[in-house]
Amino acid sequence: MATRMKLKLKTVFVLYFMVSLLGLVYALMQLGQRCDCTEHDIPKDRTISRLRGELHRLQEQMRKSEATKQPQKQPAKPTLPTIFVITPTYARLVQKAELTRLSQTFLHVPQLHWIVVEDSPHKTPLVTDLLVKSGLTYTHLHMPTAKDRKLQEGDPSWLKPRGVEQRNEGLRWLREDRRAQQGGYNQQGVVYFADDDNTYSLQIFEEMRSTQRVSVWPVGLVGGMKYERPVVEGGKVIRFHTGWRPSRPFPMDMAGFAVSLKLVLANPEACFDGDAPMGFLESSFLQGLVTMDELEPKADNCSKVLVWHTRTEKPKMKREEALQAQGLGSDPAVEV
Amino acid sequence: MATRMKLKLKTVFVLYFMVSLLGLVYALMQLGQRCDCTEHDIPKDRTISRLRGELHRLQEQMRKSEATKQPQKQPAKPTLPTIFVITPTYARLVQKAELTRLSQTFLHVPQLHWIVVEDSPHKTPLVTDLLVKSGLTYTHLHMPTAKDRKLQEGDPSWLKPRGVEQRNEGLRWLREDRRAQQGGYNQQGVVYFADDDNTYSLQIFEEMRSTQRVSVWPVGLVGGMKYERPVVEGGKVIRFHTGWRPSRPFPMDMAGFAVSLKLVLANPEACFDGDAPMGFLESSFLQGLVTMDELEPKADNCSKVLVWHTRTEKPKMKREEALQAQGLGSDPAVEV
Repeated sequence: MATRMKLKLKTVFVLYFMVSLLGLVYALMQLGQRCDCTEHDIPKDRTISRLRGELHRLQEQMRKSEATKQPQKQPAKPTLPTIFVITPTYARLVQKAELTRLSQTFLHVPQLHWIVVEDSPHKTPLVTDLLVKSGLTYTHLHMPTAKDRKLQEGDPSWLKPRGVEQRNEGLRWLREDRRAQQGGYNQQGVVYFADDDNTYSLQIFEEMRSTQRVSVWPVGLVGGMKYERPVVEGGKVIRFHTGWRPSRPFPMDMAGFAVSLKLVLANPEACFDGDAPMGFLESSFLQGLVTMDELEPKADNCSKVLVWHTRTEKPKMKREEALQAQGLGSDPAVEV
Repeated sequence: MATRMKLKLKTVFVLYFMVSLLGLVYALMQLGQRCDCTEHDIPKDRTISRLRGELHRLQEQMRKSEATKQPQKQPAKPTLPTIFVITPTYARLVQKAELTRLSQTFLHVPQLHWIVVEDSPHKTPLVTDLLVKSGLTYTHLHMPTAKDRKLQEGDPSWLKPRGVEQRNEGLRWLREDRRAQQGGYNQQGVVYFADDDNTYSLQIFEEMRSTQRVSVWPVGLVGGMKYERPVVEGGKVIRFHTGWRPSRPFPMDMAGFAVSLKLVLANPEACFDGDAPMGFLESSFLQGLVTMDELEPKADNCSKVLVWHTRTEKPKMKREEALQAQGLGSDPAVEV
């Protein structure tokens, strides 16, 4: 009985010893661990982020006040050559959107005169209204494309060049209008052909403003390429980086060059040839005006992309047509 | 002998019990004590003191420049509510072009703060550089989309909603940043979600600036329709003109509404649910914020289209790839 008691007590003792030992070991491990200061950090983190925010805002404010302060000093340069931008446009679902953002770009450019030529037998109310409200200096023209030259629904966009008659009409108006000005053929100015779907940085206009004869620069996202560009060596264009027929006289996109007003006025016959083979439209205009050797490279020797040949998707009208069939289509009186 | 043994064991047991108890109590007291985080604090304290110093210097600088600037004409309208525009963006060929023209639009809008959130594990140099040069007040954030939520090459664009995590990150930053401002939840301001491919008239920003809770207007060229819009009767939205499931709580495109900053701050949990069924993303955000009856119709009772859901074509790179195969591709160092 005593032995059993002894044994029992021993067992209890050993058990208790082990349990308490485990507890001690655990407590000691806890003591050895690094403090968890995460919770403690939150207020300091907040302070840091708040201070950073305030700092950022102040810096922004200063930058802005710097930006608005600068133009006050210099008097508007009266000698800034006018940039005449000729834009052919045609009625389609995205037309108003395209012209809207394009006009917002041009609104940032000083001394810009926008010549908008509609592919239409008359000036449309949509374009008329947009131009009136644009805040830009503009001339509104129209010239319908001859029927046999017009792309038909479903034709691929490269089949016939678009905007030929409209660009030529813009040139015709410009020559006539300038002839009536004083200065004759010796007027400062630049002519640029800007389609309504491309994207233009503001810098490209300052690059082209100093054009003497024909200035050139890279165009992004054109001709199945990341960019096309004139290749410059020793300040001269020596060849062209293009994905297709680099042997063309001027294998460049319409968005990649500007011509001085003087040159346009001195060559009253220069225009775009709608019958030129595919890819030769730009060459048909430039061929009589300039040689490759005379081209003036801009945009840091044609090393920077400052204009992009963006194209806007034709919106699908599936649901519209389905609703129209039920007499529930969108109100045609609402201009889109 | 057995009894003495028993006694001895008992004494040992009791003694051990008391000693170990003391040890445990001590250990527990230690555990209950507050962490000593002093060492841990030092770098944060340094950051705070450095930021305070910079802030102080800038404030001094501004005070001085204010003092010299005073005779400037217009005192910046202090009451104009800021428009916080949250734009998710992702790397692709047309990204720089899109952000370029979007920044030109925003540059016309007074008191606009652009929050650009890249779908990327880091801020990219392209977007960083573009923002620095933009002349806009901006905040540059990034938040990669979780892998299982990302659209894969070839997926149709409607399969998974794009920009969810980025818009939510923009909201998170805005709430945190505004919490640090004076005025707390009572700050004037408007929050708008503007994707980088849409087209925005300047007027839409003046329409949304007076938003009290949630303002709404038509969106052009969206959802297979000429436009979608809230239908207004007696100054209230009574239903929605849409081509698909008009029964959704808010069958509107992201570009068709703005929310007051107050409402965003007062509902800190409101965000976009990436798991919402197709077409319900906008509803997942708006549902907890507003009822149809409370919507504020803008744009002449939702009769004018002032924003367009334009989409830019993905440029073809056929010739680029062919030239690259010959080692004649475009220079990857040229940013497009």
